[in-house]
Amino acid sequence: MSANPQLDSQGRLQHLLTIDGLPASIITQILNTAQHFKETGADSKKLPLLAGKSVFNLFFEPSTRTRTTFEIAAKRLSADVINLNVAASSQSKGETLLDTVDNLSAMSADMFVVRHAESGAAHMIARHVAPGIHVVNAGDGRHAHPTQALLDMFTIRHFKGNFENLRVAIIGDVLHSRVARSQIHALTTLKVPEVRVIAPKTLIPKDVEHMGVHVYHDMQTGLKDVDVVMTLRLQNERMNGALLPSREEFFKYYGLTPEKLSAARPDAIVMHPGPMNRGVEIDSAVADGPQSVILSQVTFGIFVRMAVMAILAENT
Amino acid sequence: MSANPQLDSQGRLQHLLTIDGLPASIITQILNTAQHFKETGADSKKLPLLAGKSVFNLFFEPSTRTRTTFEIAAKRLSADVINLNVAASSQSKGETLLDTVDNLSAMSADMFVVRHAESGAAHMIARHVAPGIHVVNAGDGRHAHPTQALLDMFTIRHFKGNFENLRVAIIGDVLHSRVARSQIHALTTLKVPEVRVIAPKTLIPKDVEHMGVHVYHDMQTGLKDVDVVMTLRLQNERMNGALLPSREEFFKYYGLTPEKLSAARPDAIVMHPGPMNRGVEIDSAVADGPQSVILSQVTFGIFVRMAVMAILAENT
Amino acid sequence: MSANPQLDSQGRLQHLLTIDGLPASIITQILNTAQHFKETGADSKKLPLLAGKSVFNLFFEPSTRTRTTFEIAAKRLSADVINLNVAASSQSKGETLLDTVDNLSAMSADMFVVRHAESGAAHMIARHVAPGIHVVNAGDGRHAHPTQALLDMFTIRHFKGNFENLRVAIIGDVLHSRVARSQIHALTTLKVPEVRVIAPKTLIPKDVEHMGVHVYHDMQTGLKDVDVVMTLRLQNERMNGALLPSREEFFKYYGLTPEKLSAARPDAIVMHPGPMNRGVEIDSAVADGPQSVILSQVTFGIFVRMAVMAILAENT
Repeated sequence: MSANPQLDSQGRLQHLLTIDGLPASIITQILNTAQHFKETGADSKKLPLLAGKSVFNLFFEPSTRTRTTFEIAAKRLSADVINLNVAASSQSKGETLLDTVDNLSAMSADMFVVRHAESGAAHMIARHVAPGIHVVNAGDGRHAHPTQALLDMFTIRHFKGNFENLRVAIIGDVLHSRVARSQIHALTTLKVPEVRVIAPKTLIPKDVEHMGVHVYHDMQTGLKDVDVVMTLRLQNERMNGALLPSREEFFKYYGLTPEKLSAARPDAIVMHPGPMNRGVEIDSAVADGPQSVILSQVTFGIFVRMAVMAILAENT
Repeated sequence: MSANPQLDSQGRLQHLLTIDGLPASIITQILNTAQHFKETGADSKKLPLLAGKSVFNLFFEPSTRTRTTFEIAAKRLSADVINLNVAASSQSKGETLLDTVDNLSAMSADMFVVRHAESGAAHMIARHVAPGIHVVNAGDGRHAHPTQALLDMFTIRHFKGNFENLRVAIIGDVLHSRVARSQIHALTTLKVPEVRVIAPKTLIPKDVEHMGVHVYHDMQTGLKDVDVVMTLRLQNERMNGALLPSREEFFKYYGLTPEKLSAARPDAIVMHPGPMNRGVEIDSAVADGPQSVILSQVTFGIFVRMAVMAILAENT
Repeated sequence: MSANPQLDSQGRLQHLLTIDGLPASIITQILNTAQHFKETGADSKKLPLLAGKSVFNLFFEPSTRTRTTFEIAAKRLSADVINLNVAASSQSKGETLLDTVDNLSAMSADMFVVRHAESGAAHMIARHVAPGIHVVNAGDGRHAHPTQALLDMFTIRHFKGNFENLRVAIIGDVLHSRVARSQIHALTTLKVPEVRVIAPKTLIPKDVEHMGVHVYHDMQTGLKDVDVVMTLRLQNERMNGALLPSREEFFKYYGLTPEKLSAARPDAIVMHPGPMNRGVEIDSAVADGPQSVILSQVTFGIFVRMAVMAILAENT
């Protein structure tokens, strides 16, 4: 177990880098801790669990939204939060990524929340930092976005009770999505019996079936009788070249409308990691409709990020 | 009274959006609360009134200065402050203004301080947010800047004792000024007997006399015997087209010099909302002279913003 | 003594502007206070020494790194920290530097940490602010960077015990370096018996020998038997014109490699103010080698900045 770069020799969480290889017991520990914060009204009171600790939001790729959720979570735990938006340009100015991390570590950082356009950046930092410093991956390239997947699992468990009898479909640009990759690992680790991905062939990774999912290219059959519908943001900015004819055509075939959603179970929930492209991957009638739990995802995201940070701090 | 979007059914302040329609009793409540903060030395100690609350500074238009005053005020009340500078570009990236607000609300925001280039943006957000979330307008387009007007009223009351026997003149670019609009509403609500505006015809809004003010185009007669001189920032960046011959010519006719100021009462005070264009709307000899209360306005602005936030938090 | 703009009439520190003219007793007071913070584990606990105080990081020149160290130090002392990155453009927008300072002072600022591209900016602000407001120079033009020099002195004392028997060499772009200027003043004030600078003729200031240092143009003789090797960042961005043939040629003659370092004493320590240009002024084998104390400098920098702020706050 000590071969897992996220765990120490006793199998305790030291970094949150990816869902791939994370034991189900740790995922459940995070979800239960988040549930505890939710129930004890941590949304309105400050907890002292990270008092005197310094959390560095180290964002090499801009994301006001994700950065804000980590900032709020850390402040609710009474941490000092330092926001660092490191532009690519200043990186090329002579200081390497690891020099930057060494310097911030020397300022007595306790935790790094890292977003980077390169897959593997958070792993590299985790390998490099001294023991006792924790790294949370807030999204690296196309690789992983583990806190997003964890808040999605929290949301599913909240609305569906458990993972044992579920049919879950993930729709859209799976190829470029670190969110999808992390969601698939989380769902299979938690033994969801049936995980589907629905997308045009050009947006499906080659090896996806090895991950234990079923591939559909058609919404009607893919959504049939599912309990959970997870939409993805169409990553315009990540697409190089002509993998898609147009946003309009994508919406026509894969945009989640009330009509397409009617193939799912009547009590199916609809999720989206945000920010939404309304009229592209999701229709406003669905996004704002009764089956949407999209804003609950955001609220639960605070509790889940608090849980991850609190567990890491306790495992110091 | 519940028709007023700023008040709840008991007439308590829920949002601060505009001075237009705000009852005199609420204005007085804010001024008295600010006075209390001033007297109890709140400038050097932290108060716990917003402890555990999250205040989001949501600035769609850059303004380091105004953002800073709200940040300081909120921190003095022990709030967690999250600064969000939302560039117009990222707005066009697919997430609408209201989606942004929904998401931040779902992160358990307690208060939004909003600046936006569009008139009415703060109103739209206030209509949209859930009960218990408060919105403070920190400037929307040409429409309103209510905390600026309130701190101006605080300043006038501080130096002049009351509003009942005053002659007040507002000089300059009234047409483009949300500050002027809010000041006029505040002065008339507080029953200042004589409110004047002084500006070239091209910078006077058509309907201004309906607001209860007297229009002057000449400084000598406009400033005659006034008690309070309120200068405005010349909004270069807001002027499209040739409403003015030049900054030099503006200064010649409307720039507040010691000579022009001598038409006012000898104990008249001079105000400016900042930042000043020295040598355009105001001469340095006046800005730094004995009648200037411009820096007092800044200091009082912290107390007034603390008061607004404290009252809103109490009315949750 | 009251002629010193940094001290009050009792000789107590009121501003930290430059090491030039700072009494050795004050330098020692700062180093001892920092030592106290280091020993009492202030790296992990918050101290209340600046509770309720507002520290403004007023950066007219971008420096994420230096700003971050001051932000961390101030937060460890429980101050409210307001970060203001004032772009040159907004300065030219009509508000002068001193108007900005006046406004922030009126918001009840207790301390300004100032970085500015113009030499003398921090002095000008210190002359201007009201009594009780303290100014810390975080780097002004080519003039001074006093907290960097102080943390360097702390580092030397930590590793070498005292200053009395040392031979210290400063290598590189002394001409453009505010760091070098501050280091030389600190070393001579603390009575280091031999201070050397090593650089090509084009990077040596004309008057440097009047500062009590010995000039070398050759690494082999300049590093001979020194106890402390202080490398400087090659300030590409500050060099106008062709003072240097190329970065490669600089490295060949002045880059600190293990071979060149072998001329120094075997227990010599190697320092760098960061961020490093690896392969230009320093070889990675030295930067990451056993004689490097570069990351200790960063850690000590937090304690030294805490000490400066705590002393200033106590002298209010």
